[in-house]
Amino acid sequence: MVVVLKKRTTEEQIANLVGWLKAQGLDADISSGENTTIVGLVGDVSRVDTELLEALEIVESVKRVSEPFKAANRKFHPEDTVVELSDGTRIGGGHFAVFAGPSAVESEEQILQVAEAARANGARVLMGGAFKSRTSPYSFQGLGKEGLDLLLKAKKATGLPVMTELVDAADLDLYEDVDILQVGSRNMQNFSMLRELGHSGKPVLLKRGLANTVEEWLMSAEYILSEGNRNVILCERGIRSISESTRNSMDLSVVPVVHKLSHLPVVSDPCHAIGNAEFVPAMACAATAAGTDGLLLEVHPDPTKALCDGVQSIAVDHLSPLCEKIRKIREALK
Amino acid sequence: MVVVLKKRTTEEQIANLVGWLKAQGLDADISSGENTTIVGLVGDVSRVDTELLEALEIVESVKRVSEPFKAANRKFHPEDTVVELSDGTRIGGGHFAVFAGPSAVESEEQILQVAEAARANGARVLMGGAFKSRTSPYSFQGLGKEGLDLLLKAKKATGLPVMTELVDAADLDLYEDVDILQVGSRNMQNFSMLRELGHSGKPVLLKRGLANTVEEWLMSAEYILSEGNRNVILCERGIRSISESTRNSMDLSVVPVVHKLSHLPVVSDPCHAIGNAEFVPAMACAATAAGTDGLLLEVHPDPTKALCDGVQSIAVDHLSPLCEKIRKIREALK
Amino acid sequence: MVVVLKKRTTEEQIANLVGWLKAQGLDADISSGENTTIVGLVGDVSRVDTELLEALEIVESVKRVSEPFKAANRKFHPEDTVVELSDGTRIGGGHFAVFAGPSAVESEEQILQVAEAARANGARVLMGGAFKSRTSPYSFQGLGKEGLDLLLKAKKATGLPVMTELVDAADLDLYEDVDILQVGSRNMQNFSMLRELGHSGKPVLLKRGLANTVEEWLMSAEYILSEGNRNVILCERGIRSISESTRNSMDLSVVPVVHKLSHLPVVSDPCHAIGNAEFVPAMACAATAAGTDGLLLEVHPDPTKALCDGVQSIAVDHLSPLCEKIRKIREALK
Amino acid sequence: MVVVLKKRTTEEQIANLVGWLKAQGLDADISSGENTTIVGLVGDVSRVDTELLEALEIVESVKRVSEPFKAANRKFHPEDTVVELSDGTRIGGGHFAVFAGPSAVESEEQILQVAEAARANGARVLMGGAFKSRTSPYSFQGLGKEGLDLLLKAKKATGLPVMTELVDAADLDLYEDVDILQVGSRNMQNFSMLRELGHSGKPVLLKRGLANTVEEWLMSAEYILSEGNRNVILCERGIRSISESTRNSMDLSVVPVVHKLSHLPVVSDPCHAIGNAEFVPAMACAATAAGTDGLLLEVHPDPTKALCDGVQSIAVDHLSPLCEKIRKIREALK
Repeated sequence: MVVVLKKRTTEEQIANLVGWLKAQGLDADISSGENTTIVGLVGDVSRVDTELLEALEIVESVKRVSEPFKAANRKFHPEDTVVELSDGTRIGGGHFAVFAGPSAVESEEQILQVAEAARANGARVLMGGAFKSRTSPYSFQGLGKEGLDLLLKAKKATGLPVMTELVDAADLDLYEDVDILQVGSRNMQNFSMLRELGHSGKPVLLKRGLANTVEEWLMSAEYILSEGNRNVILCERGIRSISESTRNSMDLSVVPVVHKLSHLPVVSDPCHAIGNAEFVPAMACAATAAGTDGLLLEVHPDPTKALCDGVQSIAVDHLSPLCEKIRKIREALK
Repeated sequence: MVVVLKKRTTEEQIANLVGWLKAQGLDADISSGENTTIVGLVGDVSRVDTELLEALEIVESVKRVSEPFKAANRKFHPEDTVVELSDGTRIGGGHFAVFAGPSAVESEEQILQVAEAARANGARVLMGGAFKSRTSPYSFQGLGKEGLDLLLKAKKATGLPVMTELVDAADLDLYEDVDILQVGSRNMQNFSMLRELGHSGKPVLLKRGLANTVEEWLMSAEYILSEGNRNVILCERGIRSISESTRNSMDLSVVPVVHKLSHLPVVSDPCHAIGNAEFVPAMACAATAAGTDGLLLEVHPDPTKALCDGVQSIAVDHLSPLCEKIRKIREALK
Repeated sequence: MVVVLKKRTTEEQIANLVGWLKAQGLDADISSGENTTIVGLVGDVSRVDTELLEALEIVESVKRVSEPFKAANRKFHPEDTVVELSDGTRIGGGHFAVFAGPSAVESEEQILQVAEAARANGARVLMGGAFKSRTSPYSFQGLGKEGLDLLLKAKKATGLPVMTELVDAADLDLYEDVDILQVGSRNMQNFSMLRELGHSGKPVLLKRGLANTVEEWLMSAEYILSEGNRNVILCERGIRSISESTRNSMDLSVVPVVHKLSHLPVVSDPCHAIGNAEFVPAMACAATAAGTDGLLLEVHPDPTKALCDGVQSIAVDHLSPLCEKIRKIREALK
Repeated sequence: MVVVLKKRTTEEQIANLVGWLKAQGLDADISSGENTTIVGLVGDVSRVDTELLEALEIVESVKRVSEPFKAANRKFHPEDTVVELSDGTRIGGGHFAVFAGPSAVESEEQILQVAEAARANGARVLMGGAFKSRTSPYSFQGLGKEGLDLLLKAKKATGLPVMTELVDAADLDLYEDVDILQVGSRNMQNFSMLRELGHSGKPVLLKRGLANTVEEWLMSAEYILSEGNRNVILCERGIRSISESTRNSMDLSVVPVVHKLSHLPVVSDPCHAIGNAEFVPAMACAATAAGTDGLLLEVHPDPTKALCDGVQSIAVDHLSPLCEKIRKIREALK
């Protein structure tokens, strides 16, 4: 961390600052130029409160040189984290997985049909919404507990591990047999929930917030990791931008960026990012070529009965050719 | 709501769609042009699931003509909502209030000192963080329960109503004597929490999310209102934008926009929006001139002991001249 | 185009509006609901001035149903545009090309060395900046006319077609032997320049502006096309967003989106979008998998003499393995 | 400027770097910590090419401590710039001016009528579009030369100085009698044009680009100033953001920010920023309270003949009460 001091700072003020920093376990290198004095902090700066430092009267600005995240930081944990599920499925460190399922669990017939097709077409995780997080209180909020039970029925029937969203930490008991707890983008900075997930020890898929930086996303992962739960999968689902041609903008560069900064696996959700099934295959291929560790693909059982399907879902029988293409692209990258 | 149909839609498909809409209590006007058929929906469209409609195979696009919010909508509730606090302070409908206090409650001495000065300088609500929502798990998270107790002590000492942030709905019992529950921008779409606040009946100050539209913000208010709690105050605190010269961009146009769309009071938080105390007075004046119903002003007791103060706080003794300026601007607007 | 009228519009006002629209060659379908009257416009609406329509007192809002671009619109020109260069190189309609070269032409030795390596490694177009567009007047502005001459020397030596940026339409005469005129993102809406390029007939590569929508981008292409020049290549180079981990955000979804909306080829510039050579190969692969028609790759001759190279350039000898990977991905997509 | 070096940088490499920096007239302070070596640059760093420095193999990052603009920088020119027009009207340094006029000059009658009303209501500058910059080639492009002549006729009739937009530097000869040359937001980084305006010496109003930072805006002003023309007025006209309730987001904080960073006057254009006449008065008042040096107000002569008026224009007879309110707010700020 580099602290730039204001022009008329006195020797005494600098000495006071250095003393205060030392009390916090940090060393300080002073570099005095004609116009500027710069203090380089050495030591564990990840616990330094930047805003507090910036507020000091003698400080002009504070610039981070190293990242504020620690448990998520590849520098301190060079090995890839590999998240392993109950059935032995692995994600991260070269292990790739397709997550497939409907946006919302709607009936036993629907979820069983999708689950079978998903497994047959190579998906490794079944996903499906039970408690939904909706912008409007008047929109369908999911089947709740009943949807969760149907999802677990489909898990039993197919043997696929399941993932579903947690919208309230008070519901956590209901999720005992769920394999991966999904944190939606709107809850990425619901820190109370993140801390409870840290205690649970279960695999967590943490979606990036709509307008959050990679650093903020990794700091949210840090809330889970620092409580002792190392099974965190990051998931990019698009950011809000000036672009209007897709629902959100898929920020694919986070795949190589996260792989550099962190040891955690990062997967991609082209359906929510794009919001239009027509463009999902191209973006699923692009994410694969960028090196993603997995793909979330919303599917629906029957394209002719489109009434209850989201605009962003692809038909189950299109899953197989897409998975084949993805396999070939992964081959080409080797 | 206007539904634009695809080119080769048959008469039969249109009849099916109209039947399905009628079953949902809506009437449909068909307008067939050479290239396009347009269906105008008449009736209560606020409960229509737009995404579901867009997913229909025959639908090209869906455009809302009226707003999806109802309880918050001025069209249905033309009278201004006025939120009244325990001591008779009113906010909205021409009643203006300054909220003042420290970013975090730090000690009994600090909060009592700020509270006295705030009251003396014309503030109507004392605010202060007890449970803090911080990007990093390593940053100071507030004094928690102890901070809350100190804030309530200051309430007793000064008679000022108090506001503090709720970060976990499970803590709600602790907030019984708090006058206004603040929902932070990161929890604007924590819908479980919003619903519980709807049940509580207490005044809620709902901050706008960092990258949320006015419509999404009003839909979040709708979660509280539709559970029967009408005491909602909206608070603009800046949006994340391409601008880099201030922490966030203060989107002041929401003041007249919200006043047109909704009957709810809207207040402004220049300190969080700008992040630099130097520019806060100019933006507080601007918000006042735009017609805001109140201002949140972070203050700290002593500018010479800057160590624990945020960069965005103004010194308590600067509050009085600023409040005087604000009073004069409000006078000029009459 | 759909025009929504205000509630209390009279029959006479509607009749006046319809009359005015007919005078402009448009038919109007009226759909009167209980709360809203909607006018659907039929005919060539691409020349209608939406803002003017919105300004009418009786109009609540205007919603476009069809796109405002015509010459660039795939609906009217279903066949892919294929841009053919002097040496027979084709771009678009399934023809893919790598553009390679330095950010700025610096010396005869440099440009010749890069040009030879580019050709040897499979590039089809040599690019190099002569007149540069820089944010600061104090930054290096390129060698100008001398840089152009060196680039043309490299064209003669290698036989590769060349592309370079035009920063002032008054310089157009100097570009006679240049094969592709590049319009930088800062000039995407320099309409005077676009019109002159429309007259020139030469292939134009039109970069997307930093914060422009796909529609605005296609409207800028329309300025060139509508003057009779059909040789337009679109180039995505990243948009400014809330993301901070890369210089800009690479909005890869524009590849399938543009392919749907328009017949024009669209190529990708991962170097400018990302600004960090480390992440360029992953994003070049991703763009290829998304279906791009070409890639702009900044290269520099010698990685050990990094002094004058941009952070975003890749070493010439890394070009060959990257091109091989790209070839394999294109194979996998078939 | 602070240069952070990579971990394994050798003494020799550092010595080479320092030597190279000295050759460019800069001194370097070295601060070596356990993990990081930091080089603080002392001297005139405004001409240093940051990108070039970042590209050096031993450099991890470069952080600016001081601003890259010089001629526009208040640090070097503490006195406010006051732009004086032919009739003695002054803008900046406490002098405030209202600019009023139609979006486009349409007829002699229209411009004369507006000009008279503008003058009568206290406007100091008459503005009106002759050559228009439009997103679509099919939209009305202005009356061109004829519009310019009509504007100059209105200047003669009323004695008001006039401002109009320059869209092509080749047209500069036509603007001899124009008092202020307006650079539109789309041309903010048309550097060829900015340089020519630098030579012209005439007052220039430089609009901020749709997605440009304050630093980029000041660097564009620097292109004009560094050619010897000091008569530059900055104009904020809204930025593109995630907000959807107004056309653009009015970033009012730039008023105090620019006043701190630069000595140039900064005026505000609420009409283009907001795009809805209904909200213009509130935002004009807000800009005034924020301390703007002037306001651009689009007006139209007759609200009942709305056909040719923009949605963002206010009726001429509303100008007088608005100007009166603005006067009172300016009074309140004293």
